Amino acid sequence: MSITVSRDRNHRYSVVTSGEALSPAGPLRTVLEDCAGELLVVVDEAIWPGRGARIQALLSGTPHRILTLAGGERNKNLDAVLRVVAAMDEVRVLRRSSPVLAIGGGVLCDLVGFAASIYRRGVPYVRVPTTLLAQVDVSAAIKTGIDHNGFRNRLGAFWPAALTVVDHGFLATQSVEQISQGLGEVFKLGLIASEELFGRLARLSGDWTPEWFATDPAAAELMNLALEVMVGELSEDLWEQDLARRVDFGHSFSPLIELRTGLHHGHAVALDCLLSASIAAGRGLLAVDALPEIAAVMRRCALPVRHPGFADVDLLWETLTEVTRHRDGAQHLPVPIDLGKHAFLEDLTRAELAAAVARLRQVV
Amino acid sequence: MSITVSRDRNHRYSVVTSGEALSPAGPLRTVLEDCAGELLVVVDEAIWPGRGARIQALLSGTPHRILTLAGGERNKNLDAVLRVVAAMDEVRVLRRSSPVLAIGGGVLCDLVGFAASIYRRGVPYVRVPTTLLAQVDVSAAIKTGIDHNGFRNRLGAFWPAALTVVDHGFLATQSVEQISQGLGEVFKLGLIASEELFGRLARLSGDWTPEWFATDPAAAELMNLALEVMVGELSEDLWEQDLARRVDFGHSFSPLIELRTGLHHGHAVALDCLLSASIAAGRGLLAVDALPEIAAVMRRCALPVRHPGFADVDLLWETLTEVTRHRDGAQHLPVPIDLGKHAFLEDLTRAELAAAVARLRQVV
Repeated sequence: MSITVSRDRNHRYSVVTSGEALSPAGPLRTVLEDCAGELLVVVDEAIWPGRGARIQALLSGTPHRILTLAGGERNKNLDAVLRVVAAMDEVRVLRRSSPVLAIGGGVLCDLVGFAASIYRRGVPYVRVPTTLLAQVDVSAAIKTGIDHNGFRNRLGAFWPAALTVVDHGFLATQSVEQISQGLGEVFKLGLIASEELFGRLARLSGDWTPEWFATDPAAAELMNLALEVMVGELSEDLWEQDLARRVDFGHSFSPLIELRTGLHHGHAVALDCLLSASIAAGRGLLAVDALPEIAAVMRRCALPVRHPGFADVDLLWETLTEVTRHRDGAQHLPVPIDLGKHAFLEDLTRAELAAAVARLRQVV
Repeated sequence: MSITVSRDRNHRYSVVTSGEALSPAGPLRTVLEDCAGELLVVVDEAIWPGRGARIQALLSGTPHRILTLAGGERNKNLDAVLRVVAAMDEVRVLRRSSPVLAIGGGVLCDLVGFAASIYRRGVPYVRVPTTLLAQVDVSAAIKTGIDHNGFRNRLGAFWPAALTVVDHGFLATQSVEQISQGLGEVFKLGLIASEELFGRLARLSGDWTPEWFATDPAAAELMNLALEVMVGELSEDLWEQDLARRVDFGHSFSPLIELRTGLHHGHAVALDCLLSASIAAGRGLLAVDALPEIAAVMRRCALPVRHPGFADVDLLWETLTEVTRHRDGAQHLPVPIDLGKHAFLEDLTRAELAAAVARLRQVV
C-alpha cells in the first residue's frame, strides 16, 4: 500500500506602521479586546524603564502578565525560550484566542516567536518591534529562532506573527549605534536589490540623529521603502524553496563573527556586504573603484568599515563552509555586480577570499 | 502603511507499507543513495538488540552515525530532542539533502520529528515505525512533539516525515500488551469513524498473537484499513483549523492519566473512549446496553476496561479542563452515538462525568 498526501497550508500576516502602538486606541486595541483569558506580554528589559508606564497604561483594561527578558544575541537561547514557555503555561495560553504579545528588539521578537511556534504545535503571537533593525528586517520576515550549540539561528521555525505594529517613535531613545545597526540591513537591501533605497542612504545628512528617524517624514519614507522592498523580496518565496537568495547577501561570512566576537548583526551584515563586494571586484564583476564609494555610504550610515573578524580569513572561510551547509551544500554566495543588481558565486576559493580581504585593506 | 501577505505552503508526505523496510533493496534504498554526507540514524533502544545487525547491514554502504535512544512516554522530553540536535550538529546535517532517519516506536518518531522540525527551521526526516501504535496512528499524522512541564505534547510542530515505511514484520517480536496498545487507537477509530473497522476488531480471534499481526494477510488488511481511515480523517484538515475533531475521541480525559500514572497511551485512549461512551449513554445518545458490548470488543483486543485513573473524577475533570484550552476554550468532546457515528458535547458537567464513571462501574 502506498499513500501520498499533498496539502497546502495558508499563512497570513500583517505589518502596519503606526505612531500609536502603545495607545489604547491604536492597532493593538482589537488584540487586547479579543484576548480570551490572561494576556502574556513579553517586554524587552531595554525598553521597560522608558516605556513601562505606557505599556501598563495600555494593558490596564486587560487581564495580563508581564515577563521582561534581556535582548542581545547572547540571550537568544533555549533558556529564554523556556522562560517564555513557562510563562505561557502560567497564564494558560489557549490554542488560538490568547496570542502572546512581544514588545522589543529583534532577539526578543525572534525568541518569543519561536516559543509561540512550538507551544501546542503553534499558537498566535503579535509583535511590536522597538529597534530599527527589528522594524525594517525582522518585521518583514516569518522567521523565528535562537542560537544553539555555537551556531546562529540553529533552532527555529517559519512562523509568522499574526500582526506586527511598527512604531518609529521607539527610535527616539535609541543610540546612534543602534540606529546604524538597523541601517546595516537597509544598506544590504539597497546595495543588492534597490538602487532607490541605496540612493536614499547615500543622500543621508551627515549629522542625522535617532530623533530624526523617530519623527521626520523623510525618515519614515526611507524606512517604509525598506520594509516594502524587504516584504516584496521575502514574500516571493517565504519558505526558501530556492536557497539561492539575494536577501542572504551579507549573511555568508558574518554569523560566526557575531557569535564569537559580539559584533552586532546589523554591523556584521554590512561588513559582509563590503567583503562580498570586494570578492565581486576580484572577479571583475564590479569596478574596484566602487568599493570606496560603497564604504563612504557605510560611513554615512555610521556603519563600521573594518573589524578584526573580517580580516580573519580562517574564521571567514569556516563560516562560509557552515553557511554552505545551510544552503544545502552550495555556496550560493550573493555578490553585487552593480547598484541593485547581483550574481551568485558557487566556486569561491580560499585564496580569492584572502585576496578580497587584502583588497579592502588597500582601497578602503 | 499596512501590508498583508497571504501565501500557501505545500506539504507532501508518503506512507508506504513494505515487508522490506530493512532490506538494502527496499523502500529506503533511494533515501540512503541520495543522502549527501553522513546519515544520522536514530534507533529505539528497544529494537536494537533484535534488529541492530540488520540495520547495520542496511547501512553498510552509506556513511552514517547511529544514535540509540530510549522510547516510552517518560523519555519524550526536551533532553532527548537536544541529544538528537547534538547528533545532527555532529554529522553536519544539510538543509535538504541529508534527512534524519528514525527507526522506533511512537515516542522516538515524535521526538526525532520535532528535532527535525526545529533544526535550521525544518529539515527532512524519514520514519520506520516499529510498534503497532506507531504504524497505524503516528504514521498517518504530521504531528511531532514532546511532553514538557507536566503536559503531554506541550511542545511540538506539524512537520510531516517525507517518507514513512510501515513494515508489519516488526510486530512479531512485540508483546501482546504492546500490540494491544496499538489496537487502542484502532478501536477508537472504528468506534467513532468506521463501522467496518470496528467489525473487524469484534471478529478478532480470541487467541491472536503478535506473530499473527506480523504475518497474516487478514491482519495486514485490518492494519491497512486502519491506516487508510486514519489518513483520510487527518488529511481533511491536517493543521486542525477545526478544533472539533472526531479523531480527538479518546484524547479528552487520558493525557494527564498517562503522564501521572504511566498508563500507556493506547490503553488510556481506549479507556477514554469507553468513558465517553458512558457519557453519551447518560445523555441518551447511546443505549446503555452498548457499553458492555463495547467493553467486550476491548477485551478481545486485550485492552483494559478499568483503571484507577479513570475512576478519579478530580483528575478526569482537571484533564478535560486542560484539554479544553487546547481546543481554544471549547469542550468539543467527541462521543459515539452509534457505531461509526459521533456527536460533540460542549457542556459536560462534573456531575455528569461522575455519573458516567459510576455507570461504568455497574455495567462493565
